[in-house]
Amino acid sequence: MTDPLRLGIAGLGTVGTGVVRIIRQKAKLLEARAGRPVTISAVSARSKGKDRGVSLGDYAWEDDPVALAQRDDVDVFVELVGGDEGPAKDAVEAAIAAGKDVVTANKALLAHHGHALALAAEEAGRVIRFEAAVAGGIPVVKALTEGLAGNDMTRVMGVMNGTCNYILTRMQSAGLAYDEVFQEASDLGYLEADPQLDVGGIDAAHKLALLASIAFGTQVDFGAVEMEGIGAITIEDIHHAADMGYRIKLLGVAQMTGRGLEQRMTPCLVPSGSPLGTLEGGTNMVVLEGDNVEQVVLRGPGAGMGPTASAVMSDVMDIARGFRLPTFGQPATTLERAQPAAAGTPAPYYLRMSLVDKPGALAKVATALGEAGISIDRMRQYDHAGPDAPVLIVTHKTGRAELARALDAIPGLGVVTGDPIALRIENI
Amino acid sequence: MTDPLRLGIAGLGTVGTGVVRIIRQKAKLLEARAGRPVTISAVSARSKGKDRGVSLGDYAWEDDPVALAQRDDVDVFVELVGGDEGPAKDAVEAAIAAGKDVVTANKALLAHHGHALALAAEEAGRVIRFEAAVAGGIPVVKALTEGLAGNDMTRVMGVMNGTCNYILTRMQSAGLAYDEVFQEASDLGYLEADPQLDVGGIDAAHKLALLASIAFGTQVDFGAVEMEGIGAITIEDIHHAADMGYRIKLLGVAQMTGRGLEQRMTPCLVPSGSPLGTLEGGTNMVVLEGDNVEQVVLRGPGAGMGPTASAVMSDVMDIARGFRLPTFGQPATTLERAQPAAAGTPAPYYLRMSLVDKPGALAKVATALGEAGISIDRMRQYDHAGPDAPVLIVTHKTGRAELARALDAIPGLGVVTGDPIALRIENI
Repeated sequence: MTDPLRLGIAGLGTVGTGVVRIIRQKAKLLEARAGRPVTISAVSARSKGKDRGVSLGDYAWEDDPVALAQRDDVDVFVELVGGDEGPAKDAVEAAIAAGKDVVTANKALLAHHGHALALAAEEAGRVIRFEAAVAGGIPVVKALTEGLAGNDMTRVMGVMNGTCNYILTRMQSAGLAYDEVFQEASDLGYLEADPQLDVGGIDAAHKLALLASIAFGTQVDFGAVEMEGIGAITIEDIHHAADMGYRIKLLGVAQMTGRGLEQRMTPCLVPSGSPLGTLEGGTNMVVLEGDNVEQVVLRGPGAGMGPTASAVMSDVMDIARGFRLPTFGQPATTLERAQPAAAGTPAPYYLRMSLVDKPGALAKVATALGEAGISIDRMRQYDHAGPDAPVLIVTHKTGRAELARALDAIPGLGVVTGDPIALRIENI
Repeated sequence: MTDPLRLGIAGLGTVGTGVVRIIRQKAKLLEARAGRPVTISAVSARSKGKDRGVSLGDYAWEDDPVALAQRDDVDVFVELVGGDEGPAKDAVEAAIAAGKDVVTANKALLAHHGHALALAAEEAGRVIRFEAAVAGGIPVVKALTEGLAGNDMTRVMGVMNGTCNYILTRMQSAGLAYDEVFQEASDLGYLEADPQLDVGGIDAAHKLALLASIAFGTQVDFGAVEMEGIGAITIEDIHHAADMGYRIKLLGVAQMTGRGLEQRMTPCLVPSGSPLGTLEGGTNMVVLEGDNVEQVVLRGPGAGMGPTASAVMSDVMDIARGFRLPTFGQPATTLERAQPAAAGTPAPYYLRMSLVDKPGALAKVATALGEAGISIDRMRQYDHAGPDAPVLIVTHKTGRAELARALDAIPGLGVVTGDPIALRIENI
């Protein structure tokens, strides 16, 4: 197999431009590694005239990604358009129908339509690869589907939205409020056009749903991901958590339990000194746990031209080398529909509330927790200038039902201002 | 391709037994993932009668691994015998000559004979895979050769001998001397039969030489690895380094420089809070740096039945899936002979010496350093009960030649007892 592998690249934003650059600059290296040349036949993007700092003159131009996907001189359709509907979906479907392999960085598309697309691709004898859709430059899809193929995976965890981690770590290091850092991130161009994709946890939840599918051999089920963004995290929470030895992270966890598949992407507290706790800025981290390998932790840049293009190239090179793997690591027809399970594993929780400054207030809260079946590990009441005293409680392991009972009861005690905040603690 | 992939496993120690166990327990899962059954035809080990806690009755037995490698009912020869000469080498050569693929965990064999074996295998159209030879359960060979195939690698680093890291971190946590912890490790069975393989840095240097080859497309050149063990590290060094904000690690570094390929496996100081600095016990960590991906860090168990068997299975599953890759990521005939370069990149150094307690002693040392062209970043002199005062110096970036000049000059000053200790600092 020494014929060139010919790409058609749709989408010439940061990542697409990065891929073009690598293929132009490393032609010889890629050919040595793949045993055949990797070339570009044609490209497509919204604006033909835009200067992208890389020469496109050697490649045919298509205005329509669907037309690009169907070209006879394209073996692999590289989809870097984005979005879970519209041109990206149309073009991927067209590529499969036309007998092309697909490489995509589109987590939203696969989180919503991955199972149907995988079925269509496998029916047509084609592959869809998506290393760049999860955790940027970290080769985590490959690690899971190939490197750990001899394991029953038990749990997958990750900090997989660099923007959220930037915001949370920047709040802490600069002592700034959420809104201020959100604005900074926006000014720096770190946020998606719809910022809820980032700070609402949606983007990270897309990634988690994909990892869960390949880890557990289940049909991707984005709708079952329990999701909570970071918008309610205050600088006080961050300081208080640090004071108790924790960092707040938007943490994804997927695990197969006796009750079904638990998938959640929520703000959690992790120990400050743990690998996840020390993760700063836009860096991503994924923790993979399997019955044989125990625990492997992968850390790397979660976004950016070079890292994401590197991940796209991982898939391109696999296809060039003739490695053909079903989209989710095993044939889509064999993927099970997982029973979704609420995040019911008992865990310690961090509770924060504003206590009215009157005698017996703290006792009432403690009693309410005890009556709900929650036992207290540590509690701190802080100095206060205003009328209310911030109180922090770290509980022992607590079930969801007990927690809900306590959170329902506390506001009615008449000793707390506003609703209590509860964040799960993951001791990893 | 739905015929079973049939293994012959030579060596039934911890890892071999682990592989047998996985194949027996996960037959259905492995078949779903590989698209074909993975079976064992025959096994071989030194003692047939030994109880290994796993049933071997279904498999043919061969006393001679060479005979096992040549069996008609074996597609893949799994070499878990060990050793760079003798039965392991004979059997791998026999397997290749008989047209079998090879999976091995044998870093010594490949560090010494990897290039010749790769040439022979490729001539015969066979593959040799060695994920389990480097960093236990961490899928680092796969990450480098496949996940980062779109990068020119710039540097590879790693803590890859769990026993050394156990000894160094245990010395620190328990405040024990090297000899005491060495004895503990020996009693716990953590040491190789020849402990120099571990504490002399040889085992870790084998691994580094393999990573360097796949990272830089060069012929494996174990002889060119600059190597220093951990036997000279004292508990005082560990405490003093901690006091300056560092941890001591047996750290491997391979980088392509303008002068050639630098490969070293030596004790280094790394910042306490860095990913490498926080690595405790037998855990391994590999840092991969490429021009596009920037930096990816992989962390996981470096040894043990489950993790190492998991790595063997990664290779077995790749072969079962039809993924065929040259041993070192590109055809052995295209691997270049790297010019070996001494570790000449300037770096800060940690120096420790025992100063005679007389006026002007420290000034003489400082002057000697200055005359050698070395500038001092930080210096500490400690309280002392005996006649000599421990003095620690952290230098600014210094070349090897300057350092050698200073280390030559200092003993002749008449103010220092014994030879000064110098350890490189890697600020990563």
